[in-house]
Amino acid sequence: MTIEEQLKEVIRDIVDFPQPGIVFKDITPILKDPELCTAVVEAFAERLQGQDIDVIAGIESRGFLFGLMLANRLSLPFVPIRKQGKLPFKTIAESYKLEYGQATIEVHEDAFAPGARVLLHDDLLATGGTVVAASKLVEKLGGIVAGYSFVISLDFLNSRGRLTRFSENIVSLVGY
Amino acid sequence: MTIEEQLKEVIRDIVDFPQPGIVFKDITPILKDPELCTAVVEAFAERLQGQDIDVIAGIESRGFLFGLMLANRLSLPFVPIRKQGKLPFKTIAESYKLEYGQATIEVHEDAFAPGARVLLHDDLLATGGTVVAASKLVEKLGGIVAGYSFVISLDFLNSRGRLTRFSENIVSLVGY
Repeated sequence: MTIEEQLKEVIRDIVDFPQPGIVFKDITPILKDPELCTAVVEAFAERLQGQDIDVIAGIESRGFLFGLMLANRLSLPFVPIRKQGKLPFKTIAESYKLEYGQATIEVHEDAFAPGARVLLHDDLLATGGTVVAASKLVEKLGGIVAGYSFVISLDFLNSRGRLTRFSENIVSLVGY
Repeated sequence: MTIEEQLKEVIRDIVDFPQPGIVFKDITPILKDPELCTAVVEAFAERLQGQDIDVIAGIESRGFLFGLMLANRLSLPFVPIRKQGKLPFKTIAESYKLEYGQATIEVHEDAFAPGARVLLHDDLLATGGTVVAASKLVEKLGGIVAGYSFVISLDFLNSRGRLTRFSENIVSLVGY
């Protein structure tokens, strides 16, 4: 089986979560399977092989899971991008719209050096709002978005086009 | 240098965060150093060697970082314990007091089988409120708290005594 087939076997659809009409992709069954977790990281490593990446930034909270493992696998520094008020050192912030209201994410000012090539990691690409804001944070700090890695992309939402102005390099292991 | 000395060299004190009078231990410099991240996981693995552990549960958000890596290193399933409303499947919840107000954490009902020996992981042991609530969640689901792993323990807060009624097995790499 391909990694996509293996993942699709265990990813669980949760209907009407977090809101009516939404089908949530539950990745917790992946986390229960250590061999599959290794396969996820190896699949990312293979698809990112030979690419020019200096730093991996993971988006809170689920982007912390495979984000740090992947950074470790590639012997790269890991940088957390967090919700407002969580990072203790000097930060820069970026806000983005949600369906109702807005959210703000932050990164430490010393997260990486200017010119660094930053791969953004999250578990899931949905509408892309968070990861677009994260891309703006990278550029505000003088970094370059080297690409994106997602376990899952909800391709029916057509949000890849929102990312390509930062980088065309979008790796996703499972598409729906 | 011991792992404790290596970690103390890079952990950063942030004065008056998140509130006046608190000195926050910033672990983000650890995450920037892939060799040190490997050393952290190896140090946990060494101290947990030979122990009877079935599952590692990491507490959102920073417990996700080394929690999943450690689970993978030990070939064990990983279970996320999350803030209220974040886990999509059926959950059980436990509330605990904060200095002002209260917080609630949740775990999936199918996170592990009854009788499973669960190691609880977080980046830092402070007053222990969250990890005591997490221990109660483990027991509510019929699990056994097999122990605790923390990168840092703030030993001057004397909170280990709050955990020993669940398990005496408390591993921490850096004490203050």
